[in-house]
Amino acid sequence: MYSLHIIKIGGAIINDRQALEATLADIAHLSGPKILVHGGGKVANQWLSRLGIQPRMVAGRRITDDETIEVVAMTYAGLLNKRIVSQLHKFGCPAVGLSGADGNVIQAVKRIHPTIDFGWVGDIVSINATFLHVLIEKGLMPVLCPITHDNDGHLLNTNADTIATRVSIALSDDYEVNLWLCLDLPGVLSDVSDKSSVVKTLDTASYQSMAAAGSISKGMIPKIDNALDALKEGVQKVYITHADSLKNLKEPNGTRICL
Amino acid sequence: MYSLHIIKIGGAIINDRQALEATLADIAHLSGPKILVHGGGKVANQWLSRLGIQPRMVAGRRITDDETIEVVAMTYAGLLNKRIVSQLHKFGCPAVGLSGADGNVIQAVKRIHPTIDFGWVGDIVSINATFLHVLIEKGLMPVLCPITHDNDGHLLNTNADTIATRVSIALSDDYEVNLWLCLDLPGVLSDVSDKSSVVKTLDTASYQSMAAAGSISKGMIPKIDNALDALKEGVQKVYITHADSLKNLKEPNGTRICL
Repeated sequence: MYSLHIIKIGGAIINDRQALEATLADIAHLSGPKILVHGGGKVANQWLSRLGIQPRMVAGRRITDDETIEVVAMTYAGLLNKRIVSQLHKFGCPAVGLSGADGNVIQAVKRIHPTIDFGWVGDIVSINATFLHVLIEKGLMPVLCPITHDNDGHLLNTNADTIATRVSIALSDDYEVNLWLCLDLPGVLSDVSDKSSVVKTLDTASYQSMAAAGSISKGMIPKIDNALDALKEGVQKVYITHADSLKNLKEPNGTRICL
Repeated sequence: MYSLHIIKIGGAIINDRQALEATLADIAHLSGPKILVHGGGKVANQWLSRLGIQPRMVAGRRITDDETIEVVAMTYAGLLNKRIVSQLHKFGCPAVGLSGADGNVIQAVKRIHPTIDFGWVGDIVSINATFLHVLIEKGLMPVLCPITHDNDGHLLNTNADTIATRVSIALSDDYEVNLWLCLDLPGVLSDVSDKSSVVKTLDTASYQSMAAAGSISKGMIPKIDNALDALKEGVQKVYITHADSLKNLKEPNGTRICL
């Protein structure tokens, strides 16, 4: 079985063109097949703000009304995805940018919630692993943005960590998948105020005790849950780390998540 | 040799969601391999206007400054391209949306002009016909937006008619290409004020005499030039017509261009 790196980048790095370019150079130089998943919420917020549309968040999730889905589709699938793809080519890494609509690569369903109307937010139904496999076999790196669709003409906003996780699981039948969930921090911290307190290895038991003690930040919890889901469903290795780790995957920094 | 339909849509139809959807249904129902190329200048102008960025045109071409390339990339490659792809899936036509950066499918070079600084406008250098062929063979319809790149990290704005023409030429070695340049009019008119004056067949000689007599509109001239270029370079058939013609390609309305 070939190994496959699936890398998710998001947060401040997407908003810092120099940092993004340096990270893309690192990703371009990784050997073997790979898939990139990117976010871009901060950039989307800037465009929403310029357009006078107030971002609305409930429980850390964006409320995606009719205007907001247009602006996030523009930002994620248009500006950021194409900028990233073009820069990967510059660094010698042939790439293809995709939303979930392209080749129906990520089909989702509009979220129905008993009390909150999330708007055009999509929960993933299926991944077209065959199409991703075709692109990888042709030497192309799929670059996925966090826009999916319902296969019925509607674009949907979907969390990029969840996309990376579900794509990792879908491809773990064909590849030994290493999933890299990159963030602005060096890894999972045992003390949220101390960036040197990186937990080297986090398993389910230690995660549960840390969560019970309140020493894991709220934003980290869904990431760790995604990581554990991936491992349970056959993904080989999962790291939560800073994008700097992509410089040397043989001795990665950050937190390795284990069952 | 298989036949291949290459369809370019643009103008008011892209800005009218119902008309666009009806046209996409027609395109989805066309049998055999096909490629769609779309514009979207009117929609881009609306977003530029909302953002307080004044569209600047010189000689019918957009001046694409740093801010404008961001907004047109967002509009063409993000909102319009993904909306079109998702709707094609709805109508049972699997599709993949692409900018020129994706798979380096359209590599261009920033236009250098002795007197006008067009900004981030790209002239096409090469078409990756192999990649388009791979997608078509997998049963997917490529949907190309008018954003290209220089393979060095820069996105470029490129005329959609020219993209349709160059892609048609590049694929005419492998397919009998029928190119459909759709517009808001029923075809080339012999009297610009009379929509019933459609010229059924226009060859080089009659085009030259009509142009000399001033009876062809300014906007039509580059379209006809593109059509003639396509025919000279091996494209089988070229029509300039309204998108309504896509309902019945066996008895097309509009103007057939001939050498």
